[in-house]
Amino acid sequence: MTAPAFPTAPDTPALERGAVLAPRFDEKGLIAAVATHATSGEVLMLAWMDAAALAATLATGEAHYFSRSRQALWKKGETSGQVQQVTELRIDCDQDAVWLKVLPGGDGGACHVGFRSCFYRVIENGALVERE
Amino acid sequence: MTAPAFPTAPDTPALERGAVLAPRFDEKGLIAAVATHATSGEVLMLAWMDAAALAATLATGEAHYFSRSRQALWKKGETSGQVQQVTELRIDCDQDAVWLKVLPGGDGGACHVGFRSCFYRVIENGALVERE
Repeated sequence: MTAPAFPTAPDTPALERGAVLAPRFDEKGLIAAVATHATSGEVLMLAWMDAAALAATLATGEAHYFSRSRQALWKKGETSGQVQQVTELRIDCDQDAVWLKVLPGGDGGACHVGFRSCFYRVIENGALVERE
Repeated sequence: MTAPAFPTAPDTPALERGAVLAPRFDEKGLIAAVATHATSGEVLMLAWMDAAALAATLATGEAHYFSRSRQALWKKGETSGQVQQVTELRIDCDQDAVWLKVLPGGDGGACHVGFRSCFYRVIENGALVERE
């Protein structure tokens, strides 16, 4: 599959205030993607997208990421059932991160360990405490 | 300054369920950090931390990041006044991302462009629309 082409912003005003989606993928071709629960607002996970994952997310309305460990496009929920219906997709000022508001399918969670959110541990006095 | 040393988790159970903070910095020594507003829950920004930034955040209760453009430790708000008081700090399942709940000082915003959140643009039909 040919990688989808996104344009490059010509200057800072276009990057920061323009209406053209011009994601700044890093040297590995990735941008950070944070997914929050569309109703609770909870941060569910932080993952990565390459151009193909972003294009697939935009085309289907379901979250696609790039797995760094598997080096492959990854439709969230393909095996777990935790498909993420995207209700809103935002990009940040310098277009190197996206924020997805999602409705998780399946058991309603997002984390492979079994918690609802991947962020199930609070750092307290230097130690980690599990707390949903 | 000597870089603070964090331990490495010996195995996956320790990494995912352990009580020891063992962040997995990438080959550049960074982990992703997402900051949300402690009261509204809004995602304010996505930035990066090296070991020194994470240690400074833990030690002071104020958010410190690593500026990739300036390649330097960066106390958020040092020049803008938008100091971020951390009310809760979480780490994800594979310990390569942190979630900070923060109370922003100064004008209450987090974005250098002037918006409250860096994510002030929604992607709609392939184009970017500014919407707070």
